[in-house]
Amino acid sequence: MTRPAPLSGFPEWLPAGRLLEQSLLDRLRRTFELHGFTPIETRAVEPLGELLRKGETSQEVYVLRRLQEYADPRARASLTELDDRQLGLHFDLTVPFARYVLENAGRLDFPFKRYQIQKVWRGERPQDGRFREFIQADIDVVGQGSLPFHYEVELPLVMAEALAGLPIGRVEVRVNNRKLSQGFYLGLGLTDLTAVLRCVDKLDKIGPAAVAQLLVDQAQASGAQAQACLDLAQIQGGLADQVGAAVRALTDRYGAANDQLEAGLGELTGLLEAAQAALPGAVVADLKIARGLDYYTGSVYESVLEGHQSLGSICSGGRYDSLASDGSQTYPGVGLSIGVSRLVSRLIGQDQVQVTRPVPTAVLVAVADEASRPRSERVAQALRARGVPTDVAPTAAKYGKQIKFADIRSIPYVWFPGQEDGTDQVKDIRSGQQVEADQRTWSPPADDLWPRLVAV
Amino acid sequence: MTRPAPLSGFPEWLPAGRLLEQSLLDRLRRTFELHGFTPIETRAVEPLGELLRKGETSQEVYVLRRLQEYADPRARASLTELDDRQLGLHFDLTVPFARYVLENAGRLDFPFKRYQIQKVWRGERPQDGRFREFIQADIDVVGQGSLPFHYEVELPLVMAEALAGLPIGRVEVRVNNRKLSQGFYLGLGLTDLTAVLRCVDKLDKIGPAAVAQLLVDQAQASGAQAQACLDLAQIQGGLADQVGAAVRALTDRYGAANDQLEAGLGELTGLLEAAQAALPGAVVADLKIARGLDYYTGSVYESVLEGHQSLGSICSGGRYDSLASDGSQTYPGVGLSIGVSRLVSRLIGQDQVQVTRPVPTAVLVAVADEASRPRSERVAQALRARGVPTDVAPTAAKYGKQIKFADIRSIPYVWFPGQEDGTDQVKDIRSGQQVEADQRTWSPPADDLWPRLVAV
Repeated sequence: MTRPAPLSGFPEWLPAGRLLEQSLLDRLRRTFELHGFTPIETRAVEPLGELLRKGETSQEVYVLRRLQEYADPRARASLTELDDRQLGLHFDLTVPFARYVLENAGRLDFPFKRYQIQKVWRGERPQDGRFREFIQADIDVVGQGSLPFHYEVELPLVMAEALAGLPIGRVEVRVNNRKLSQGFYLGLGLTDLTAVLRCVDKLDKIGPAAVAQLLVDQAQASGAQAQACLDLAQIQGGLADQVGAAVRALTDRYGAANDQLEAGLGELTGLLEAAQAALPGAVVADLKIARGLDYYTGSVYESVLEGHQSLGSICSGGRYDSLASDGSQTYPGVGLSIGVSRLVSRLIGQDQVQVTRPVPTAVLVAVADEASRPRSERVAQALRARGVPTDVAPTAAKYGKQIKFADIRSIPYVWFPGQEDGTDQVKDIRSGQQVEADQRTWSPPADDLWPRLVAV
Repeated sequence: MTRPAPLSGFPEWLPAGRLLEQSLLDRLRRTFELHGFTPIETRAVEPLGELLRKGETSQEVYVLRRLQEYADPRARASLTELDDRQLGLHFDLTVPFARYVLENAGRLDFPFKRYQIQKVWRGERPQDGRFREFIQADIDVVGQGSLPFHYEVELPLVMAEALAGLPIGRVEVRVNNRKLSQGFYLGLGLTDLTAVLRCVDKLDKIGPAAVAQLLVDQAQASGAQAQACLDLAQIQGGLADQVGAAVRALTDRYGAANDQLEAGLGELTGLLEAAQAALPGAVVADLKIARGLDYYTGSVYESVLEGHQSLGSICSGGRYDSLASDGSQTYPGVGLSIGVSRLVSRLIGQDQVQVTRPVPTAVLVAVADEASRPRSERVAQALRARGVPTDVAPTAAKYGKQIKFADIRSIPYVWFPGQEDGTDQVKDIRSGQQVEADQRTWSPPADDLWPRLVAV
């Protein structure tokens, strides 16, 4: 067996990286749970009929076939065929959540707040250098029939709080409102709103001049209409009054006022005011945010990690009036999703955050000789019983070698069991300080107990 | 969209079930980490060449194809072909771990103790009623070149401790030793050891008479040799001396003594003695344990949950002298794996364990009217800042309706913010008791703070 090579697009971390990722996930989970979001986990697969409903990402699905089908001549003939019941890996957590809500509607209590942290897969072409497997962390709240607007304020604040709890620099949640922008486009006389949104969505990538041209080419806009779209997209800021005034000024200039725009502007300024009161500076309006997906119907969110604009939005989402519908009932919702793996990859790649050690172990108990290993094991069990992660030296090598074993792994303490009637000692191998210690009472300082995340 | 139906073999839980599963996983993880096992996570896919190396489970692999390949006429032609680089979903966590160790050998510190909790997939035929997606929780320790025997004692004890920490009834780890049984078979004059093991492995399923016949038919055993194999398989017990005496008596009777048997017996009795001293009653010898897989070379483990023998072994594993090899180095290891989903499925199905509520929320803050929602949000944030999971009522309905909202979800406390200058009150809706409370100091009793697992 030769040494295997990594698979492009399928990130894996060394133990220190996984501990870092796990710490981030634990913190996200804690924030979500403190806000009353309940965990669910959905299966990794959905029928293709479910996955391809929206059409857009159809090229990115991994289809599953059983190996046995390749061996069976009859089954083999159907290997080139697809039908709706065929299974594929989910490419996000929204499609499975919508299906889960419909499937279990009678057994869930609405409004239903859930978080979901799972891997998703996208069959991107390898040469794109994109992730084909990655972890998403989603929160959504979904109602039955209706869902109050205040959740459009609450959810980005929960995410802002969750992201602020990570040692990753400042994250700003940027918000727009689909009613506002669509109302404005309609007020201008534009009709193909999906095309307009798709063009505006490219602003960061191709710049205003190219977007103006695209609007003319693909959304039947006049030059003046295209300019108006660009003007709207330039409005941003954290203060409700200023944003409101800027939108009104623009609306008046183009005579674009209408009820839909008014409703959207009311929601956007309401959101900004509430966010400003709750978590000042965490949420700002940014009217160029379009979000390509056409199921958003109210607030839409993106977020930027300071110093890492090139990562793009690390947390996105929005309000949708119909997450799912079973004919008699619709399920409106609002949700946001964090792309965890891309974030972790960046943090590891740039050495920006580290864990204090690549193992949980705080204490290594030395072994004097193999005959006294049970004695060392008893010390370890006594420490573990009091919540101290403890390992025992693998061999009864010279103490210098056992200390080296700890040092390589950044295990901070080595414990030396005393002889029959002697007392035990514990050494902080960073300072070299060695003191007498009792397995029934000694604990490391809180900062040394578990591996910690530290900004570098 | 009509109501979707569950997919056979792909278990999913309602929120209470997922909270239960998550609590079990948290407890396992804590035990593993207290013992110094470090977490890793591997990608869900491996090249088929890697997955099919051992051959045995080849029929159970899910092969991945990109949806785009079905649309592209040239790619489509190759859809019926397989090659070693094609990706499939992993069917256990041992194959990916072996690959991970080889791939990262230069960057890992040995002996390397890791735990891994992930989903695995097996393309079983749907009608088998087996799980096609399930969670495994594995611990392994792997050495470079060599690995001391004491880890064969340590690992089953860690699992016994982890399982004893769950509210699921008594779990007994049952152990055998491959050297002992193979030495015995060789001493009898049998030569096809793989065939013998495969026959003995069926004891629980088909009984001794049928196994004796199988041994004659498939392992070239005489009637007397078959009987000797059955006699060995009957030996069990927790006391090293008794097990040792029983094996020796049998060995003498059949004149089967040899060095390999002696080495295996020494390991088995050594394991029993150490286990008896560390965790009395947790580990017993059971010499019928064969474990079909041929890569085990020393101790082999299974475990039985009292009252749920029909579940089969809920935790299995063993010692392997070569988890992986890169030509110049081999990596011996010992590991055990818990089948978490099957266990959770049984616990949920039989209502044996429950969580105290299906949401994290301990306190629901009532909302007097929508204008005062920010006031209620501030109470909630104050409680969350002190670690109390708190939600705010979805609408300013009558208080009776808000209490009902909490009651349906088994949220134990409802908080009523006072008017401007009034004091707040909190009600335990189980007892009806309502007291004055200050958001800066009040906390629920520890038992109510988070959902808890309780045996029913």
